[in-house]
Amino acid sequence: MIELTPRLDETLEEALYMQLYHYIRGEIVAGRIPTNNRLPSIRRLSAHLGVSRTPVALAYDQLLAEGYIISKPRSGFYTADVETFSISPPTTYLKDQSNVPPSIPRSYHSSQEDLALYDFGYGSVDLDSFPLTKWRKLMNRCLLPENSRLLLYGDLQGDPELREEIATYLHQIRGVRCSSEQIIIGAGTYHSLDLLFQLLKRDVSCMAVEKSVNNGVKALLEQFRFDLHPLHLESDGIRIEEVYNSKAQAVYVTPSHQFPFGMTLSVNKRIKLLNWAKEHNAYIIENDYDGEFRYNGRPIPSLQSLDNDERVVYVGTFSKVLTPSFRISYLVLPHTLLEQFRLGRHSYDQLASPIFQKTLQLFMQSGDFERHMRKMRSLYHKKHDILLQAIRHVFQDINIDIIGTGSGLHILLRVRNGMNETQLVQTAKQKGVIVYPTSIYTLKQELTATPTVLLGFGGLSEMDIRTGIELLNKAWSAE
Amino acid sequence: MIELTPRLDETLEEALYMQLYHYIRGEIVAGRIPTNNRLPSIRRLSAHLGVSRTPVALAYDQLLAEGYIISKPRSGFYTADVETFSISPPTTYLKDQSNVPPSIPRSYHSSQEDLALYDFGYGSVDLDSFPLTKWRKLMNRCLLPENSRLLLYGDLQGDPELREEIATYLHQIRGVRCSSEQIIIGAGTYHSLDLLFQLLKRDVSCMAVEKSVNNGVKALLEQFRFDLHPLHLESDGIRIEEVYNSKAQAVYVTPSHQFPFGMTLSVNKRIKLLNWAKEHNAYIIENDYDGEFRYNGRPIPSLQSLDNDERVVYVGTFSKVLTPSFRISYLVLPHTLLEQFRLGRHSYDQLASPIFQKTLQLFMQSGDFERHMRKMRSLYHKKHDILLQAIRHVFQDINIDIIGTGSGLHILLRVRNGMNETQLVQTAKQKGVIVYPTSIYTLKQELTATPTVLLGFGGLSEMDIRTGIELLNKAWSAE
Repeated sequence: MIELTPRLDETLEEALYMQLYHYIRGEIVAGRIPTNNRLPSIRRLSAHLGVSRTPVALAYDQLLAEGYIISKPRSGFYTADVETFSISPPTTYLKDQSNVPPSIPRSYHSSQEDLALYDFGYGSVDLDSFPLTKWRKLMNRCLLPENSRLLLYGDLQGDPELREEIATYLHQIRGVRCSSEQIIIGAGTYHSLDLLFQLLKRDVSCMAVEKSVNNGVKALLEQFRFDLHPLHLESDGIRIEEVYNSKAQAVYVTPSHQFPFGMTLSVNKRIKLLNWAKEHNAYIIENDYDGEFRYNGRPIPSLQSLDNDERVVYVGTFSKVLTPSFRISYLVLPHTLLEQFRLGRHSYDQLASPIFQKTLQLFMQSGDFERHMRKMRSLYHKKHDILLQAIRHVFQDINIDIIGTGSGLHILLRVRNGMNETQLVQTAKQKGVIVYPTSIYTLKQELTATPTVLLGFGGLSEMDIRTGIELLNKAWSAE
Repeated sequence: MIELTPRLDETLEEALYMQLYHYIRGEIVAGRIPTNNRLPSIRRLSAHLGVSRTPVALAYDQLLAEGYIISKPRSGFYTADVETFSISPPTTYLKDQSNVPPSIPRSYHSSQEDLALYDFGYGSVDLDSFPLTKWRKLMNRCLLPENSRLLLYGDLQGDPELREEIATYLHQIRGVRCSSEQIIIGAGTYHSLDLLFQLLKRDVSCMAVEKSVNNGVKALLEQFRFDLHPLHLESDGIRIEEVYNSKAQAVYVTPSHQFPFGMTLSVNKRIKLLNWAKEHNAYIIENDYDGEFRYNGRPIPSLQSLDNDERVVYVGTFSKVLTPSFRISYLVLPHTLLEQFRLGRHSYDQLASPIFQKTLQLFMQSGDFERHMRKMRSLYHKKHDILLQAIRHVFQDINIDIIGTGSGLHILLRVRNGMNETQLVQTAKQKGVIVYPTSIYTLKQELTATPTVLLGFGGLSEMDIRTGIELLNKAWSAE
C-alpha cells in the first residue's frame, strides 16, 4: 500500500480536502503512485495525517468522481488506469459535486453555479415545456379541505383511479393489456424494481441481464444477490441463445431503447424471448423507461402486448415523459406475482405522494397528459435531429460513431481520437461541457474496446446543444 | 390438507370472491375446518374450482384481514385459532379493503365509505388542523418558472437548505447535535431504514431489537436477514443486560415512545446503552417517530443528544408531526456511516420530491412549522386526555388496563373480558369501530398473555373519540 504524506496547512485559504485532493491527484498524474495501487483507507489516512475523516472522505469522493481512483467493493480505493495527463477541471464543478455519486449521471444539481455549464445529463427533461400553470391548478384542487384525505397515506397499491388511467394509457400507447388491479404504483423505477425483486426472490435465483445496464439497477441487482448472467448486445438486442444457455429464471431487458446502447429488440427476438419464458416458466422484466419517445418508423409493440402467458412484468415511469420530481412509476404484474404482492410477504411502503398521484390522475383524465406527451415527442424529436446534425457537421477531423439514435433522450458517441474515456470526460469538462462515461454500466467491469460517452439532450435548448457540440469538438481535437 | 368444494354461482349478484369468502368463513366458524389446518394454495383452489385466481386471492385476502386464516411464510394459509363464533362484519368495510394488507394499521383509505366508521387508525393525523392555505401558497411558489429546476431529481442526499432547517430544528426540540451534512433525506421511515440497513449490513450481522416492533420495520429487518435478538420490555424500556448478553453489533430502539407499548426508555438505561455501544463499537438506531409529542413531564433528551462517541443513528419523520402524504423522513448519520454513504456502495434513490422538500423548507424557515408543531402538541394532548377520560368513564364493567399513555398518538388497551384479540377486533368492527391487533408486532410470533389492542387517536375528533369508546364498550360487554 502507498504511503501518502502531503503537507497540509490549515492556515491556507484552500480547504483541507482540496489540498489533499490536489496532492493525491498530483501524485497520480505525475506517475508517483502507479496504476492499480491500493490507497490507504479513509480511517487510516485520517489517523496518519492527524485530521478528521471528513476532509479525507471528501478528497477521495472528488478523486472518485473524476475517475482518478476507483473503489473496489470490500477492498478499498485504487488508483485508476488513467494515462499520465494533466488537467484542471473548473472549480465551479468541483465545489458542488461532493454529494453527487460519480456513478449516477442524472444531473443532481445542488447549486446555481453548475447551471452555467452545458450538461448533457441523461436525466434532464425540457423544463420550459412543462405545463406549470395547469399542474398548479390541478394540484391546488387536491389541497382543498374537501380532499384532505389526500394528506394521509392513501392506498398501498396506489390511487385506484390513477391506476385506471394508466391502464387505459398503456393500452393505447404501448399496447399493454392489463387491468388497473395489476398495476402497483411506485416512487421511481428503482423503487418499483425493489418491490419486484422482493416478489421474484422466492422463485428466481439466476437472472439474465443485458451486459450493460443502468447502474442504479445494477446496484439493486447486487443488493438482492441474484446470480447474474450477462447477455451480449447486438444491433437488434440481446442474443436469445445466451438466454437459452443460461440457468436464468428471469431476464431483465430494456427492449424499446437499450440502456445505454440504444438498440431496439427486434420483433423476431421478442417472440423468441417470449417462447423461452413460456417454455421455462420464467419471467421477463421489460423496463420501458422511455418507450413513448420513438422518432423513426412505427412504434414497436411492447413485449407485454405480445405475451399470452403472463410471463412479462412491465415497468414504466413518468420521470421521462413528464418530470422526475413527482416520483411516480409503476409495475404491471402478472397475476402470479400479484398474488405474491397481496400475500404481503414483502416490505413495501407506498412512497409516491397521494397528492401527486391524484394530480396526475386529473391531468391524465383531462387529456392534457396525452397532449403533453405528443408535444414532447415532437420537441425531443427535433432536439434529437439537431444534435445529430450538429455532430455530423462539427466533428470533421475526429473519427466518431453515433450510437443508439431514433428514440429516447440520449445517444452515445464512440470516439477514436486517442483519448480514453476518462480523458474524453475530463477534457470536455475543461471546456464547460459535461458528458458521461459508459464503462460504468457494464455488468462485470471490463475495458470497452473504443471509448464511448453518453449525451442526454432532453434538458438542453437547441442553441445549447449546438454550442455544446462545438465546445466538445474543441476539447477533443488535437491541439 | 382440506378439500374445499363450495357451490359457486356466477349468475348470482354476489361476486364470486364473496361467495367463496362466505363459504370458507362458514366452514371455519362451524368448526368443519379444524384450527391450524392448511388450506389449498390459491393456484390449486382456482384450478379445482375452475375459476381464475383473482377471486380466490381476494377471498383469502379478506379472510386474512379478518383473522380467520393466517399466512405462514414459505408454507401457505392455515385456519387461525379463532374460537367458534359467528359474526358478520359490515359490508362497507369488506368491499373496499381488498388492497389493504392486514398487518399495517395506518388507515389506508381508498374509499369514502370507510370514513363513516370510527377508525382508531395509528397512522392518522388531524386533517382539519393542517394549514392547507399556507402550504398551497408556498408550494405554488415552488412551481413558478424561475424554480423549474425543482422539477428535476435534485440533490441525492436531499435539499441542502432543508437539511439546514432540520439540523436547527432537531437541535432545538430534541437536543440532536449534527451538521446538515450528516442528514440524509428519505421518503418515509421505511425508506430511510432501508438505506441505513444497507449501510450497516457490512459491519452488522446480529441486531438486538425490541421484542415488539412496527411490522413494516420487522419486514425490512427480515428482508435484510439480520440475525435478530429480541429484547424484553419493562416499564422503563429494554433490559440492558440482554443487550450485553447478545452478540449484537447494533440495537434498534424507539426510546421516546416504544412502538407499540408506549414506555419511555429511562435516562439511566439510556446512559447504560450508550456505554454498551461505546465499549462494543456498536450502533444504536434511535427511531424517534413521534418524539415531538410528549404531554406530561419534561421532555427526555434523545439518545443522540447524549452520545459523545458517534454511535447513535437518529431516525425521524414528518409523517406524524405534519402529514404522511409529503413522504419526508430523515436519517442523522454518524461520520463513519456518512463515509459509507458517500462511497456509494448502496442502491439509494432520493424518493422525496424536490417540490415538497422545498415547500417544507420554506414552511420551516418562516417559523410556521414550529408553530404548527406546538399547536398540534396541545391539540393531541387534549385528545389524549379525552380518550383516557372516556375510557375510564365508560368502561365500568370490563376489566381494562390502559398502556403507554403520556406521549405520542396511540395507546393500548389490555382487555380482560374473555375475548381473544381477534374477537376484540371483530366485535368492535361489528359496531363500526376499528381497533387494531398488537400480537402482529411481536418479533417472534407468540401468544400474548392478555389480549391487547391498539387505538390511535390523532385522526378522530373529540366527539368521535367519545362515541367510538361508547360503541367499544357495547361491543365488548357481555350481552
